[in-house]
Amino acid sequence: MKREPLPDPVMAASAVHRPTGIHVLADLNGIDAEKLCSCEALEQLLRAAAEAAHAHVLHSHFHGFGEGQGVTGVVLLAESHISIHTWPECGFAAADIFMCGSAQPELALTIIEKALTPASSQINTVRRAPPGFD
Amino acid sequence: MKREPLPDPVMAASAVHRPTGIHVLADLNGIDAEKLCSCEALEQLLRAAAEAAHAHVLHSHFHGFGEGQGVTGVVLLAESHISIHTWPECGFAAADIFMCGSAQPELALTIIEKALTPASSQINTVRRAPPGFD
Repeated sequence: MKREPLPDPVMAASAVHRPTGIHVLADLNGIDAEKLCSCEALEQLLRAAAEAAHAHVLHSHFHGFGEGQGVTGVVLLAESHISIHTWPECGFAAADIFMCGSAQPELALTIIEKALTPASSQINTVRRAPPGFD
Repeated sequence: MKREPLPDPVMAASAVHRPTGIHVLADLNGIDAEKLCSCEALEQLLRAAAEAAHAHVLHSHFHGFGEGQGVTGVVLLAESHISIHTWPECGFAAADIFMCGSAQPELALTIIEKALTPASSQINTVRRAPPGFD
């Protein structure tokens, strides 16, 4: 399924997106607090995760709630999005990775887990598609 | 659980966010194509949905894939996020509403469904929290 016309090379590289996708909800526990406070570091991490998954970044925005506090942020993709919301005081991060097309969300999750090194993870994976699509 | 210091009145209004939330994945089918092509209309809709759910908007960004094509967008909230990704050629929209604190994602979903009037919806609701939290 083509999303043409294609406005730019980024879209040209990811033109074919069937309306099917994988949505990974990752609850990551037991993370060092200092890894969960920096907008800049988390934005860099999620952008790297998107690239590792062969997705194409359209936009990103991260918001910090104050010194030593959590961060909420999102990377908007041609293939959907990656988000993260953190609670450093609990060592907890809730990430979600939703990708359609040929992008591979599991590769993004690997990058995120490798960087944050959670003590445990609770992963929910949901397949999303309209009726009649594989 | 307080996210102090509070940088502004928006954050002051939503200071208490426990690390527990509800993540609603809504696959909405059978939608008129013209409702799924406009960045401006979908951004306005998702911002209204956030407000209806008593959430606080921090940022929003919507990207259109071209004339008559789909839209991908997100509203970043103090309470997490709402996103939507649309395929007008299939009458399909994949929305997700993730809210912690006292915001009520079901109210946001009601607003979205009322506006898009899908013929059918597939809703997955996932409770998210670190271990030991109710």
